[in-house]
Amino acid sequence: MSKPLILVSNDDGITAPGIRMLVEVALKIGEVVVVAPDSPQSGMGHAITIGNTLRLDKSIALLDLNVEAYECSGTPADCVKLAKFYVLKDRRPDLVVSGINHGSNSSISVLYSGTMSAAIEAAIEGFPAIGFSLCDYGHDADFSHAAESVEQIIRGALQHKIPENTALNVNIPKKSDEKIKGIKICRQAHAKWQEEFDERLDPNNRRYFWMTGNFVNFDKGEDTDEWALVNNYVSVVPCQFDLTAHHAIARLNNEWSF
Amino acid sequence: MSKPLILVSNDDGITAPGIRMLVEVALKIGEVVVVAPDSPQSGMGHAITIGNTLRLDKSIALLDLNVEAYECSGTPADCVKLAKFYVLKDRRPDLVVSGINHGSNSSISVLYSGTMSAAIEAAIEGFPAIGFSLCDYGHDADFSHAAESVEQIIRGALQHKIPENTALNVNIPKKSDEKIKGIKICRQAHAKWQEEFDERLDPNNRRYFWMTGNFVNFDKGEDTDEWALVNNYVSVVPCQFDLTAHHAIARLNNEWSF
Repeated sequence: MSKPLILVSNDDGITAPGIRMLVEVALKIGEVVVVAPDSPQSGMGHAITIGNTLRLDKSIALLDLNVEAYECSGTPADCVKLAKFYVLKDRRPDLVVSGINHGSNSSISVLYSGTMSAAIEAAIEGFPAIGFSLCDYGHDADFSHAAESVEQIIRGALQHKIPENTALNVNIPKKSDEKIKGIKICRQAHAKWQEEFDERLDPNNRRYFWMTGNFVNFDKGEDTDEWALVNNYVSVVPCQFDLTAHHAIARLNNEWSF
Repeated sequence: MSKPLILVSNDDGITAPGIRMLVEVALKIGEVVVVAPDSPQSGMGHAITIGNTLRLDKSIALLDLNVEAYECSGTPADCVKLAKFYVLKDRRPDLVVSGINHGSNSSISVLYSGTMSAAIEAAIEGFPAIGFSLCDYGHDADFSHAAESVEQIIRGALQHKIPENTALNVNIPKKSDEKIKGIKICRQAHAKWQEEFDERLDPNNRRYFWMTGNFVNFDKGEDTDEWALVNNYVSVVPCQFDLTAHHAIARLNNEWSF
């Protein structure tokens, strides 16, 4: 039996420690092709490159892992599009995995996440897809405890399939003394980032801002990704790309008269 | 009675004809503040600026309209965040409108749309929000037939409210000889972009790509935004920012054993 074909991407760029860990796990399971950004693309959401050109070149960043790897000048969504069209051509990946992101993509962060946009872009193409994130923003984050859950979820996805038109958003608690309790299927918590902007003057006395912010969770549910992570579970949220608020359609039709 | 406060943004940048038309309509209804990108941000999806600085300056682009306007170096989502934190401070907008985009944001394009990310960012903040797009990509697109529907929908939103945690995705057919038939509340059509990449060599003989693509609609439903637009209706889709595929949770719990 031939090995499953696994496409790997991320948003922290092809030299990030997180993608290296993901490639190492994927190599235990299947044939791996990497197409990842050539520079950090955090917070890029579902951005794509239109009105500008894209580069795609063989990468030496993962040479020691002996894996076919490409670096792309575009966004994570661009990487998946170029992988499909140019790198894989007529081969269909059995799974697309993105990450492991340096930092949480739970709850509302899924919207801003380049990691998840690569996974969702793959799901739009009809490929089973998973985005992995570690709740630790450090470039030198410790991913060692994540490998076991990542491998378990990848094997699960290949065996049981991912529901159609969804991509899994997997978040892994930061490394701590406590062992991870398990894996929970969750819904996205209702939460938001409460931004503040740090106002400064540049050397020419012109004003600029740095975005900072605190995460605020409004959701008391025990079935959310936030609850799972706080309680040291790995959270798995199935995400869809139909944004329609179906429940709101009847109300709009009743209340609004056009 | 004081006029409603309307915040206007877009993704084509503060000098685009589309935002000018939207500001003109908004000025008939309320007090208007504009915070928009200082350059085109098409296809930016829900990108935000992290790990980099932001500029925000008074803009003269809409000086002749006598409106308070700011241009920002960031993405549409950044504009809304900075508008809330810095420009409006303690004032809550009664409505946030984004656009009018030069080009369709119907169906799957909502995911890539900077126009809609400004509206969805506002909805996350709890502000009623609408993104407007014209199905004409031209910089010199004719927006003249759009004003009536835009005004009707803005007045509707102020009178009837927009359902909580949703933003409206409004698309307007391209100008044609036929009069617009009306406004329809719709769901997002199941469709995708079938990308191709045009491979070229730069003057140094290094390869680069241009993304091109065709829109493919898989959805035969007559309740979709695509159906409405093809039949010369304005489409209105309520969009949510909870991406959870709630219907998939039970299946994952049943089939996957962790």
